[in-house]
Amino acid sequence: MNDIAELQKLLDPLFPGLMGVRLVAVAPDRVTAEMEVRSDLCTAGGILHGGAYMAFADTLGAVGTIVNLGPGKRTTTTDSSTKFIAGAPLGTTVSGESVALHRGRTTMVWQTSVRNAEGKLCAVVTQTQLVLDGRGS
Amino acid sequence: MNDIAELQKLLDPLFPGLMGVRLVAVAPDRVTAEMEVRSDLCTAGGILHGGAYMAFADTLGAVGTIVNLGPGKRTTTTDSSTKFIAGAPLGTTVSGESVALHRGRTTMVWQTSVRNAEGKLCAVVTQTQLVLDGRGS
Amino acid sequence: MNDIAELQKLLDPLFPGLMGVRLVAVAPDRVTAEMEVRSDLCTAGGILHGGAYMAFADTLGAVGTIVNLGPGKRTTTTDSSTKFIAGAPLGTTVSGESVALHRGRTTMVWQTSVRNAEGKLCAVVTQTQLVLDGRGS
Amino acid sequence: MNDIAELQKLLDPLFPGLMGVRLVAVAPDRVTAEMEVRSDLCTAGGILHGGAYMAFADTLGAVGTIVNLGPGKRTTTTDSSTKFIAGAPLGTTVSGESVALHRGRTTMVWQTSVRNAEGKLCAVVTQTQLVLDGRGS
Repeated sequence: MNDIAELQKLLDPLFPGLMGVRLVAVAPDRVTAEMEVRSDLCTAGGILHGGAYMAFADTLGAVGTIVNLGPGKRTTTTDSSTKFIAGAPLGTTVSGESVALHRGRTTMVWQTSVRNAEGKLCAVVTQTQLVLDGRGS
Repeated sequence: MNDIAELQKLLDPLFPGLMGVRLVAVAPDRVTAEMEVRSDLCTAGGILHGGAYMAFADTLGAVGTIVNLGPGKRTTTTDSSTKFIAGAPLGTTVSGESVALHRGRTTMVWQTSVRNAEGKLCAVVTQTQLVLDGRGS
Repeated sequence: MNDIAELQKLLDPLFPGLMGVRLVAVAPDRVTAEMEVRSDLCTAGGILHGGAYMAFADTLGAVGTIVNLGPGKRTTTTDSSTKFIAGAPLGTTVSGESVALHRGRTTMVWQTSVRNAEGKLCAVVTQTQLVLDGRGS
Repeated sequence: MNDIAELQKLLDPLFPGLMGVRLVAVAPDRVTAEMEVRSDLCTAGGILHGGAYMAFADTLGAVGTIVNLGPGKRTTTTDSSTKFIAGAPLGTTVSGESVALHRGRTTMVWQTSVRNAEGKLCAVVTQTQLVLDGRGS
């Protein structure tokens, strides 16, 4: 499943939809997306909330993993580590690029770089996805 | 500032408000809160989205830090690490307890345990807050 | 396998032996150990090297996992996150206590607190251990 | 200070020296080094101990930060997060490349990729270094 419209439709009723995550490109080793820095995604001071960075990135890494899953498999995030580097102000748009550092049978590791409108690196999120047998198996 | 109503009022128009974070108790070394697992906070399969855990916890650790800030100081999260352990299903409520592991002049470290309605540990988030001189100084 | 002398004998020819890690107590949900802050474990300034904290803790979490493994199973660390809080000076002894946050069939999560001689928290290390079928299976 | 021989001389009596870390190249935005997988750096099964990866990487990120410090400044690691991906067997040599993700006045973020002799990615370590005023100031 790497049809963007299908994936976007899957995300829209879920938390990524609430935040306004828009997928831009999806390939087996790279996922990109955008998100507008709305006021209800900010923390005090009118900059994107740390949690919004993490949720945005978590979404991209999970989408990247799903694209690589074999039939009957599912995935869950086991770990996520974030370094916050710079702020993204209200009214701008952040872009995220998630690349696969590892795509194994048991685990996958994705790293997402979130940049602000000027292209400055704002946050780096590295996450581990466990690959599991599907529900019911 | 450790008046819960004041802090809640600060959070409501921001990302924690969008997610429905409700502060329960705020003390200098411990912050607790609740959040309902709404459908628009979930990931596929009807369980709380990993990003929602992280954003919930980030909020508690930041509130805990703010309560400890001296006059003219502000804070920003520099690092956050999460271990995901169990799921919290749609329609239930998760509770978070954030405790201070360290409260120094330059950094504070807060650890948040998120539990589901049965009290099972779902996620542990450990974050570092940098303490900075206020804007304009 | 939770006989301390046996476990210590396993560690001695390996990296924990090079560092002088001494197991103190081993139970299925808690492992404690000590390590002397020798000069060749320090960084500049005569304090314990950050890497030594992490290697010390990694050892405790792995030992804790091994004690819980079923027959024919093995383990590998997939993730480790550390917050450094205070220094431990040359010539003192640090103590580590690793507790199980989660002991599942697929993953275990252990958190190790490293304290200096005065009992002050120096570092907190949280690690995920993947449980795998043994080699050859 | 970015003279390799000088830096190596600084490391040799410390923990990196005990492990046999050899600096290969040092530039303000990139540090590379090698380390032989000796038996006393291994864990059970004859592969490099997780702690040795982390200590190796921590050294590179700290060296990279030191090279960028202004006069009268010092640094300490506040956070380190590692993803373990593949093993490095006894008798081989691992190489590490640490690149600066951020070099600010207050914090620097370095990411180290450790690869085995075949060039396969074994571990990724992302660390935050706090920049402080020197001792005595």
